[in-house]
Amino acid sequence: MKHTGKKNALYAQSGGVSAVINASACGVIETALRHGRQIGKIYAGRDGIIGALTEDLIDVGRESAATIRALKHTPGGAFGSARFKLKSIEHNRAEYERLIEVFRAHDIGYFFYNGGNDSMDTALKVSQIGESLGYPVICVGVPKTVDNDLPHTDCCPGFGSVAKYIAVSTREAALDVASMARTSTKVFVFEVMGRHAGWIAAAAGLAGRKSGEPPHIILFPEIPFDAERFLERVKQCVTDYGYCVVVVSEGTAYGDGRFLAEAGTRDAFGHAQLGGVAPVVADMIRQRHGYKYHWAVADYLQRAARHIASQVDVEQAYAVGKAAVELGIKGVNAVMPTIVRKRSKPYRWTIGHIPLSEVANREKKVPREFITPDGFGITAACRRYLEPLIAGEAYPAYRDGLPDYVRIKGAPVRRKLKKTFQI
Amino acid sequence: MKHTGKKNALYAQSGGVSAVINASACGVIETALRHGRQIGKIYAGRDGIIGALTEDLIDVGRESAATIRALKHTPGGAFGSARFKLKSIEHNRAEYERLIEVFRAHDIGYFFYNGGNDSMDTALKVSQIGESLGYPVICVGVPKTVDNDLPHTDCCPGFGSVAKYIAVSTREAALDVASMARTSTKVFVFEVMGRHAGWIAAAAGLAGRKSGEPPHIILFPEIPFDAERFLERVKQCVTDYGYCVVVVSEGTAYGDGRFLAEAGTRDAFGHAQLGGVAPVVADMIRQRHGYKYHWAVADYLQRAARHIASQVDVEQAYAVGKAAVELGIKGVNAVMPTIVRKRSKPYRWTIGHIPLSEVANREKKVPREFITPDGFGITAACRRYLEPLIAGEAYPAYRDGLPDYVRIKGAPVRRKLKKTFQI
Repeated sequence: MKHTGKKNALYAQSGGVSAVINASACGVIETALRHGRQIGKIYAGRDGIIGALTEDLIDVGRESAATIRALKHTPGGAFGSARFKLKSIEHNRAEYERLIEVFRAHDIGYFFYNGGNDSMDTALKVSQIGESLGYPVICVGVPKTVDNDLPHTDCCPGFGSVAKYIAVSTREAALDVASMARTSTKVFVFEVMGRHAGWIAAAAGLAGRKSGEPPHIILFPEIPFDAERFLERVKQCVTDYGYCVVVVSEGTAYGDGRFLAEAGTRDAFGHAQLGGVAPVVADMIRQRHGYKYHWAVADYLQRAARHIASQVDVEQAYAVGKAAVELGIKGVNAVMPTIVRKRSKPYRWTIGHIPLSEVANREKKVPREFITPDGFGITAACRRYLEPLIAGEAYPAYRDGLPDYVRIKGAPVRRKLKKTFQI
Repeated sequence: MKHTGKKNALYAQSGGVSAVINASACGVIETALRHGRQIGKIYAGRDGIIGALTEDLIDVGRESAATIRALKHTPGGAFGSARFKLKSIEHNRAEYERLIEVFRAHDIGYFFYNGGNDSMDTALKVSQIGESLGYPVICVGVPKTVDNDLPHTDCCPGFGSVAKYIAVSTREAALDVASMARTSTKVFVFEVMGRHAGWIAAAAGLAGRKSGEPPHIILFPEIPFDAERFLERVKQCVTDYGYCVVVVSEGTAYGDGRFLAEAGTRDAFGHAQLGGVAPVVADMIRQRHGYKYHWAVADYLQRAARHIASQVDVEQAYAVGKAAVELGIKGVNAVMPTIVRKRSKPYRWTIGHIPLSEVANREKKVPREFITPDGFGITAACRRYLEPLIAGEAYPAYRDGLPDYVRIKGAPVRRKLKKTFQI
């Protein structure tokens, strides 16, 4: 399928944002602007798909070229993102029909949806219902997730930068702990994101090069937590190295599926404790061994840390945005660009693509062969996979000591529909 | 007092380390090496003063010039630091006598002690007892503390870098929260260091330039916490801006002195909860308003974040190390170099010095006029004070995507004393 005349394009951001999702936006927009014969106006959904449903569109044409360019070094979701999953067509056909209605009103022939698994599912369905309602729209997904859990792509834009942040932070905090372990903190617990897949936790493993270098223990969601083995290993590390650095994925769970974060202490009213697996693990260590500990929870800091983004990640984020538009104007519908690794050392990659139907709602976990037999570290194969993804520093410009991040004007597109839509 | 012949020098790190304490070490060592007529060997205490007491000295002369140079961009305490405060001379004269014994055995005539208030007190006492025991040693303090609470110096090396890290991280995380607030997290709570003084919390205020820009609320240890007023303000922010970014100092306390972190929930056995004021504040907001929240605790990440150190801070850290040696060889005893601000815009500073007796055991808090009348933000005066301190980026070199931090060889100096010392 290929549009015969000029059509407008809609770009929308979806789900948890990242340090480089705006670099993908920049890739989409700059590329669309270069194809004026096929693409007319470029719109963005304000707050993602919600903007599309409520006809709250941003006129990207009103942003300056400098602003668009600056998106490449600005974290967060510049157009607004949303945690909003469309229901299945059977359960809420009205949402899909509304989308097509908005598309029709604004002559939108291209829909570029920048998100993770769920969003690819949505893009696929929009493409299908457009067809069945007689308003064909070319839907191309733009991959994004710090969790790195999309299948069929070597990695996901967003991941390389959080991986770099976590590896750098682990190396730095470990130097701090090492220098004072004799009289102060002996155990440092660092909680990282990744509820279902341990890719981010694995990246912490890059901080150490040789055996015995921190992090000494990584807890993956893929490996059932065994408190006895863990506590024994902590003690061994403190004995051998004088201190122990533990990196724990927020999704670390017992064999029966209970998250450690849920299994923690309760407040005076019996409510589960306030969240965070790091304090739970730290307290476990205190109770058994009595070591002085500290813990950190990076939370949003890790996925917003554009100041220490990976150059490779920024380039790939831009490239998938660019490729999405190029695929779209060629009429390649219901696909998602992928990162294809040609070789690891030196690192060579290219862009491929895959049908959305192959991506939607699937998760890629850390394979067992990437985790050491004891379950506490990463293997050489994992290191070979991860290392290229954190390569290069893509520093933003600074003003008065702070990164000079851009905010869009966000001028609204005049509404054309009489009906409003309640979400 | 001035040594007539050549004497050896001892350098030691003390207390919590920082992103730039090794830059001070670099300043001390490189300067000492340039004054070979006055300073013979350069030694460092392994794990700070503990190394001096136990005669466990590092032979700095065995490190390469490249390693010494690389200290300037390496965080943590390369020679090891210690939380070990010497008791008063009345209570433990033996410790001071032992120090002098070790100094005498190794012909140490210069003692450069790199630390905060406590350490300045120790350096002062060592200088006094050396005199009274007939072994004169020139003691010069080298200021260091991320807390920025030393008096009589415009700022403290270590603070500018943690300030920059916190301001950058706040700006980044706030962009993340802003982009998703409509359907996801509405309140983000970010806990920063500073148990007694709110300088680090104040630095977060640099993240926003205009009224309404995040952080919306800063909680200082200097301002008694009023839960009602705070919760009201949170609600107002969410109403006005759609979200609320709160920065909370770990030392935030109620009017009666109880830390918020202590006033939190208790576990099933009645133990105080696991630490961290951020989850306490976040839960307070959830209970009252029900907003979805996230929280982060940067902990050691903030004071180890050499990857985003302030250029000004690195230069000042080096300069106080250099000045300490220059003062020492001139025979200026029992002093500490200070940072003297000449003007704020453009920023001009120079190095002064002050008697250790003026510095020891005093704390400089954030003055009331640096905090807005409502107690939740920073004033223009505070901004003028802070801005120059985070200026410039002093990026470390990278290898394979990670900062190329150095580790010293740490070759020991041959022991000369028969007696060991139990600490």
